[in-house]
Parts: sequence; C-alpha cells; structure tokens
Amino acid sequence: MRIALGLEYCGTNFHGWQSQLQGGTVQDALEFALAEIAGQPIRVICAGRTDAGVHASHQVVHFDAPVERPVTAWLRGVNSHLPEGVAVLWAQPVDAEFHARFSARGRRYRYLLLNRPQRVGLWHGRVGWTHWPLDLALMQEAASRLLGEHDFSAFRAAGCQAKTPIKTLWRADVRQRGNLFIFDFEASAFLHHMVRNLVGSLVYIGKGENSPDWIAELLQMKDRKYAAPTFSPDGLYFRGPIYEPHWGLPDPDDDFLDGVLK
Amino acid sequence: MRIALGLEYCGTNFHGWQSQLQGGTVQDALEFALAEIAGQPIRVICAGRTDAGVHASHQVVHFDAPVERPVTAWLRGVNSHLPEGVAVLWAQPVDAEFHARFSARGRRYRYLLLNRPQRVGLWHGRVGWTHWPLDLALMQEAASRLLGEHDFSAFRAAGCQAKTPIKTLWRADVRQRGNLFIFDFEASAFLHHMVRNLVGSLVYIGKGENSPDWIAELLQMKDRKYAAPTFSPDGLYFRGPIYEPHWGLPDPDDDFLDGVLK
Repeated sequence: MRIALGLEYCGTNFHGWQSQLQGGTVQDALEFALAEIAGQPIRVICAGRTDAGVHASHQVVHFDAPVERPVTAWLRGVNSHLPEGVAVLWAQPVDAEFHARFSARGRRYRYLLLNRPQRVGLWHGRVGWTHWPLDLALMQEAASRLLGEHDFSAFRAAGCQAKTPIKTLWRADVRQRGNLFIFDFEASAFLHHMVRNLVGSLVYIGKGENSPDWIAELLQMKDRKYAAPTFSPDGLYFRGPIYEPHWGLPDPDDDFLDGVLK
Repeated sequence: MRIALGLEYCGTNFHGWQSQLQGGTVQDALEFALAEIAGQPIRVICAGRTDAGVHASHQVVHFDAPVERPVTAWLRGVNSHLPEGVAVLWAQPVDAEFHARFSARGRRYRYLLLNRPQRVGLWHGRVGWTHWPLDLALMQEAASRLLGEHDFSAFRAAGCQAKTPIKTLWRADVRQRGNLFIFDFEASAFLHHMVRNLVGSLVYIGKGENSPDWIAELLQMKDRKYAAPTFSPDGLYFRGPIYEPHWGLPDPDDDFLDGVLK
C-alpha cells in the first residue's frame, strides 16, 4: 500500500534533505523512524529536495509500505522516533499512481529577509539578512517581470539536475512588515538555488545597484555569472507541493508563518 | 562613562543569561565581546535574567566603560565578537544614575504556544506546545482575573530570590492566530518562572480541567503546589524592560514578532 506523509522541519538541524552516507539529513531521520515502525528498511521519495539550512513548512513524501500498519502508526508512531526539529503532520493511504514528485503541479517557496543595520540575533537561522536599505517598490516591479514562462538559466546553480531550465512562475511578490521583507514564489518547478538566486538579484535591485529592467536582461542573457550571488539558506521555507484535488491530500497552512503572517 | 546596550538573543543557543564558571551563557558571551573592545574585563548588569531556552527580543544592560571608545565600537565592534544567536541592537551613553535593573518600571513577556495534535517540528525551540484543544474565551477570562496587585506566590519557583511575591500585573491577555496562542504579560516585575507557571495554569483552564475561578483561588492560596506544572521555556520571549522616557533610551519593536504578529 502506498502511503503519503506531510511533514515540516527546521533546516538548521539537518544537513539538507537528501540521504548521505554520514547521515544527519531529514531523509535519513525519516527513513530511520519509518524502519522502526515497519521493522524493515523503507525508502521515501519527496516532493522537493531542500539544501542544508533550508526549512520546510510542508514537505510531502510517499513510500510503499512493506507491511500493514494502522495510519496512526505512520503519524504518531513515526513522530515518536524522529529527532527534534522534524514532525509528521499527516499520513494517508494514497492511490498507487500517486508520486510525491511527479504528481506535483507546482511548488511554493517563501523567503524571509531581515533588513536593518544590526545583524540577526534572536531569529538566527530563520531569516536572511542585509544591512543595505531596500526599496520595496523597486523589488515589487522587478519581481513582476519574472512572471510567466522563462528560461531561468541565469538563476540556476552549476550542479542543477533539472531536465530543462524553462519554468513557469505564476507568483512572485514581495511584502514588507516593519524591517522584514517577505518574498513569495510559486512555479511549476524550481531549478537548484533558483529562489535564493532570485532573492539575491531582487536585493541588488532593492538597494539601487541595478534597475528593475536588469532582471529582464538577466532572463535574456541566460547566464548565471551575470546575476547576483546566491542568498543565505537561513530565510528559505519550502511551503509545499501543489497537487490536483482528486488525490485528496491535505494542504495545511503553516501555523506560525501562515496563521500569523497575514 | 556609563553605557547602556540593547540586545536580542535566541535562548536555544545559550545556557541562560547569568554567567557560569563553565561559560556558555549570554552574559559570558557579551562580557567576552566587550572585553575584546575594551582590552580589559567588563561586568554588565541586565534588566531581566532569563533561564536556559528563554529568548529575548529586547534585553537591556549597563556597564561602566573603563576606557573611552566611540559608541559604534560598543555596537558594531561588539557584534563582530559575539557568537551566533545574539546581537547588540543599540548602544548609548547614559546618565550615571541609570541602572538597567533598578530603573526599570516594568517588564514585558510574550509566550507563543502551538496548539495542535502533532508535536513541533519547524518551530522547535521557538514555541511551546500542547495537543489538548484549548478554549480561548476561558483562558481570556482567567487571564483577566490576574490583573492588578496580587501575591503571586502560587506561581513562584522554589529558588526565587525576589524580596516580595507581591507584584502588579497590568497586562495579561491571550490571542489566537490559527493554531498559535499568543500570551502577553506586563508587570512591575516578575517572580522566577512566573510567566511559565501562569501559562501552565491558563492551559489547564483552557483545556477545561479547571474553571477560570480557579486562577483566583490559586492567588488566594499562595502555594505553588496547587498550581499547574511550569511550562516549557521554548515559547517564552522577554520583550524588554520599560524605562521612564527621561532616560532617553530606545524601545525597539521586535521586527519579527512585532512587525508580524499584528
């Protein structure tokens, strides 16, 4: 039986999502906990891999259960074997054709950026930071130029394994709450480091180093070396995949970020 | 010359505020950084000591500078010698009669409590948690009974060093944002563990174990053993002392909690 799980985690506590020989990743922690419940090894497939330091308010995985267990065992049982900083939010049997990665029609990311002269203290690991004063309107105008289908090669990490750099971005907006800037992106899929590279270039525009036209030029030049440096992982939150409703999967709001950031 | 500093820190990274022989506290980290700037040891006095795991969005300290340095050295210079998770927000020369602790006319605390069946993952270390469904109106009514001058012995930790258990509480309110409950307290001063003990008893009332009248009974009984257990430090934020305006000190809003939790 195929099972889907929703989970959340604090990226600061892990060496990224993907399993490593030396352990310490979210996937390693989850597969260990699942094996404790199943009594045998289980491999999972996730909707969107995250780098070291990147958080997830909603990650989705699927696996084929080699043994029968009540659904609550995949939720509460697994939680009792997970380390601090990661929790299963829901567990549900799902159609055998469902695939956490390939069934996703879109993905959502948020970036939190603290903008003030002093470095981050209290929210260390949870927000990116720049001391350069930023202009919201300039960043909003630049973000709007990113909407639609584009070749995002200018914002693609060297080791990116995506088949194509052409993606469709249908949300790219920036809000400001006091000294905090909130960037929201939704796309069919994202290239490796794409959000952190986009934020880096939007910040260059926000501090007046380049005009909003520059972001359109970067898209046309399709070359990573002209764009701004990759921004810190600390402020990046994977907010989950978007599936078609017929799969019947929950799509929880993050209690802290979404219950509060309104 | 007497200098006042405002700082913020993530309690998860430290063994509480107060200096210890084995180090690892916020005071140890700050005094080390100040000594790097001054070239000699400096001891600081803070507005409100915090326990291990308790955060501060605004802590204030004062010290008498044994050497003359530009104010920016006490801000940017000190920040460059501090470990991750603590930052100086402002530095300012202050009247020699100012005392970070004794000049404070009041103090503010906030408690963030996640209320859902699943344990904390993403916001581990930043929020308290209970899986019992909570009734907001019951907790709000109970909180209102705490207002005014009372003997708070029922909510006082065994080792508390305060001269008197009689304190005046002029703010005690509870709000709900999705699955997050936000408790705000302001008082002349707080006893050791007082906020965590108050939250513990309010949660007992919120889950229907006791009626709001119980909080008034606890105040009258003046005995710690009848109240609920101390709540986790993870969700507790010291939001700073309140000084009279004539001292001319900044009173910054926390960018994340206050810019966002509105």
